[in-house]
Amino acid sequence: MPQNAPPHYTIPDDIPLAGLISIVHRMYSIHMDGQAIAPGLKTGQIPFFMRISREPGITQDDLAAYYIIDKGTVARAARRMEEHGLITRTPDPDNRRKLRLFLTARGEAAVPRVFATDRDWDKRVLSGLSEEERRNLHAIFQKMAVQSRDIARGDADNGSEFGTEHR
Amino acid sequence: MPQNAPPHYTIPDDIPLAGLISIVHRMYSIHMDGQAIAPGLKTGQIPFFMRISREPGITQDDLAAYYIIDKGTVARAARRMEEHGLITRTPDPDNRRKLRLFLTARGEAAVPRVFATDRDWDKRVLSGLSEEERRNLHAIFQKMAVQSRDIARGDADNGSEFGTEHR
Repeated sequence: MPQNAPPHYTIPDDIPLAGLISIVHRMYSIHMDGQAIAPGLKTGQIPFFMRISREPGITQDDLAAYYIIDKGTVARAARRMEEHGLITRTPDPDNRRKLRLFLTARGEAAVPRVFATDRDWDKRVLSGLSEEERRNLHAIFQKMAVQSRDIARGDADNGSEFGTEHR
Repeated sequence: MPQNAPPHYTIPDDIPLAGLISIVHRMYSIHMDGQAIAPGLKTGQIPFFMRISREPGITQDDLAAYYIIDKGTVARAARRMEEHGLITRTPDPDNRRKLRLFLTARGEAAVPRVFATDRDWDKRVLSGLSEEERRNLHAIFQKMAVQSRDIARGDADNGSEFGTEHR
């Protein structure tokens, strides 16, 4: 192979859907991180960030349970977003060990940018599909999100080693 | 909300496809990490691992270019897999700075387990779809893998900050 030739790039036919999702997600992350939506907001934190925007005052523990992820990972992500002025962590007045999460004004300003960047990416990555095909795909993905969560939750309930940090 | 109620779990209707992919990928990672396919093989390394199995002797640099990822991340992942006896890193005889990657016997043994686990997850997460719908979805995802890579590559060529570690 010549010294500077780009590596051969093919998507093997027999790669499972799970493998394709890993690749697509990795490529999305590269794109999203490159957009620099807001300082301190890395792609891995966007699901947490968007969940807080949809459910202001959600506790750190409920956020961890929602994504079936260990509390330490959520705590680190929340601390990082707080340090960058994107969210506040406020102790619940009735139970001061519970931290409730809210977006700051700077955080609120980033929400439409996340949506716009995602929608633009969606359009580009699905170019070639008809409007109807896109709608179908979206509906399938909503079901996959629910079913994949049920699978992960079942693992957790069966005591497998969920809760470790993953990437 | 009662103390131990599970958090309310809904998938909002207006969440972009990119957001759904992030959620599905996170849930897949939780499941896959819980399967403990082989010591030292975390979900984030599986794309590298599988690429080496498909292209034995691929260099670390070509692996980084293939996934548009910084060389340091690939080097760390490769070192970790080597430490766990899954791959070897062999200097190229013509250019000893190039490290060529090969699976060990232990690595080879893990490949069918990755495939089987992925296929099982595919089946469960797509339950309710017909065989034809699954095939269509797979074809769409193959295109998305190529197109998402082109987008990420375009960013890289435009000098945006690809190459930082992301998760």
